[in-house]
Amino acid sequence: MLENIPKTLENLRKKRPLVQNITNLVVMNVTANALLAIGASPVMAHAEEELEDMLKIADALVINIGTLDRSWIASMEKAVKIATEFGKPIVLDPVGAGATKLRTQVALKLLEAGKISVLRGNLGEIAALLGEEGKTRGVDTSEYKEETAQVIAIKATKRFNLVVAVTGATDYVSDGKELYAIKNGVSLLGKVTGTGCMATSLIGAFCAVTEPLTATVSALTVFGVAAEKAYEEALYPGSFHVRLYDWLYRLNPDLLKEKMEVKALVF
Amino acid sequence: MLENIPKTLENLRKKRPLVQNITNLVVMNVTANALLAIGASPVMAHAEEELEDMLKIADALVINIGTLDRSWIASMEKAVKIATEFGKPIVLDPVGAGATKLRTQVALKLLEAGKISVLRGNLGEIAALLGEEGKTRGVDTSEYKEETAQVIAIKATKRFNLVVAVTGATDYVSDGKELYAIKNGVSLLGKVTGTGCMATSLIGAFCAVTEPLTATVSALTVFGVAAEKAYEEALYPGSFHVRLYDWLYRLNPDLLKEKMEVKALVF
Amino acid sequence: MLENIPKTLENLRKKRPLVQNITNLVVMNVTANALLAIGASPVMAHAEEELEDMLKIADALVINIGTLDRSWIASMEKAVKIATEFGKPIVLDPVGAGATKLRTQVALKLLEAGKISVLRGNLGEIAALLGEEGKTRGVDTSEYKEETAQVIAIKATKRFNLVVAVTGATDYVSDGKELYAIKNGVSLLGKVTGTGCMATSLIGAFCAVTEPLTATVSALTVFGVAAEKAYEEALYPGSFHVRLYDWLYRLNPDLLKEKMEVKALVF
Repeated sequence: MLENIPKTLENLRKKRPLVQNITNLVVMNVTANALLAIGASPVMAHAEEELEDMLKIADALVINIGTLDRSWIASMEKAVKIATEFGKPIVLDPVGAGATKLRTQVALKLLEAGKISVLRGNLGEIAALLGEEGKTRGVDTSEYKEETAQVIAIKATKRFNLVVAVTGATDYVSDGKELYAIKNGVSLLGKVTGTGCMATSLIGAFCAVTEPLTATVSALTVFGVAAEKAYEEALYPGSFHVRLYDWLYRLNPDLLKEKMEVKALVF
Repeated sequence: MLENIPKTLENLRKKRPLVQNITNLVVMNVTANALLAIGASPVMAHAEEELEDMLKIADALVINIGTLDRSWIASMEKAVKIATEFGKPIVLDPVGAGATKLRTQVALKLLEAGKISVLRGNLGEIAALLGEEGKTRGVDTSEYKEETAQVIAIKATKRFNLVVAVTGATDYVSDGKELYAIKNGVSLLGKVTGTGCMATSLIGAFCAVTEPLTATVSALTVFGVAAEKAYEEALYPGSFHVRLYDWLYRLNPDLLKEKMEVKALVF
Repeated sequence: MLENIPKTLENLRKKRPLVQNITNLVVMNVTANALLAIGASPVMAHAEEELEDMLKIADALVINIGTLDRSWIASMEKAVKIATEFGKPIVLDPVGAGATKLRTQVALKLLEAGKISVLRGNLGEIAALLGEEGKTRGVDTSEYKEETAQVIAIKATKRFNLVVAVTGATDYVSDGKELYAIKNGVSLLGKVTGTGCMATSLIGAFCAVTEPLTATVSALTVFGVAAEKAYEEALYPGSFHVRLYDWLYRLNPDLLKEKMEVKALVF
């Protein structure tokens, strides 16, 4: 699968998939920009009245629970149901699960509302969905151990029957049968808000051109490599953030091939 | 009229008009920054309870339907009515009209709710408002032909009795009697979210200092020239986006005069 | 107190306080980035159902009324009550008070709903809360006089019994007993949306590591010095905005000590 990653990026840019997002109020602008930079076409619509129309033309749905309220929860649930009915891939980002009961419950409800293809979160968030509390601090993970991340990722694939990405210093992606480790990325990503949410949106875009496991590994690799290139040019968060979009746009299959550090793990 | 454009920019900066926006959640920050950079003073208020107070002091109203829900639709309608009563210019951006029935209907309802001065959209959006579906893809236009853009712009001025801007590779602006073509701008604008929305906001600011036709041509010219200058310094979307604000701020009447590529067309 | 400012920054970075924000839709992304850059951990949650959970783990609460509607007002009021009960510091930014009755009333209601530690606004906003109307223009202040700012700051401390910051060309901070003037900062801050809101968020972060008066003076000094450093590198608003995050991140206690221009005033 790994050899397909550069080609997948090329396919995404050819297709220019339309990605429908119901995401949080903090990151709407930045996730839209990340999607545009990589070559996808973002749309954001949360009114229940237009979800069906929008999902008819969308190639993928991304749901991110980073800022919730009653009416948005209803929209998310409805969107998951419609996208499932339409057979569109769905990616879920359970931002802050574990930090509040509401977030944990909403994420679990969405996982049951339809066929989610990919779940992406940090260790604390995914652990919380498995009933292992105490690893989230606000919307950030409070601890990170590589072995724990692997175990949690695989456990979550079994429990929810989908592809899971536990992102952190190393990203782990599994569908329950295979497990991949992605080393690309830089720690400065943690100093810019919404970079996890951007990664989730990119997974949505890649899901429009390939199956969920390859899509998730591809998106996280692309994001990590773009971040490394950005960091070569900018060491501080404001400038780094700007260069991140530049490199999502500039990244080409050859550079990706040269820089990607992904491997399949045996478990 | 064309010779007045540089002077209009000067007038805007002198007046520093207060522009009240009810806009979409994706672009709130970036349109506020574009308005500040050009020399206007942005305000964003959507609570029905404060619309009258805010519109009393505002010099123009900008409505953008990029993210809708029931309560925001009600606010937009109320704002259009109040601004009409107060005689304040109103600019409407029908983001995504044609992509969903909700957006088409809301835009049409707003056009009837009061006296809109300017309607700005891409070809697909304006065509959808004329009942010509199938030209919108999400919030982006799916096709662009120069002759079609001109025809659609003029048709829309007749139907809705206002100034219409159909923006794209070339922007066409008409009031039904005159037709202007603006060639300024760069295609990289399409890789940054909210640039169309920024242009709409700037039209609002210019409407506070001159009549709608001149205001619209001036705003789109200013925006196009600023984009060209930004592109001279930055070839990639993240950096380009940053420089766009720099040049909205730096642009002066002389540079504008030198760079503007606007002409009146006979039709 | 002034000699403690550099040390306070160091303490903030060690503690990495979790700052819960209910803020306006325009600035959510930029305030989160400012908090991350300075070394805090931002979270944004407005659903009433999760306020208690979130405030249990948060180190401070920041409320900003820049975009209101009925449901958000209820959340803000509830959050103030819970944070008061939990003994967490609360910072209030009454954006646009005076521009509309709704904003003035909501700000006054929040001041009564619980124990606010710090109130930060421009001259027009704070004056409006004291019943002195006519000094606000949209969300910007319409006039600025140094003596008036001092008087208004002190008056507000008496009326509301908290620390007040009236920010402008010079920032004045008082608790009713002491009065500090902060000269750091650049006027270009006024050309980037949300810089006042960022300052308020930073006050929230500092309130998590020291008492409100020192926290407020520290936050505004840090913000002003970061802005000055950013302005050394970038003279225009887009680029300046980017460098502002860079310098919030880069600023160290020694540089702060060297650049800070704060003094205690006798009154």
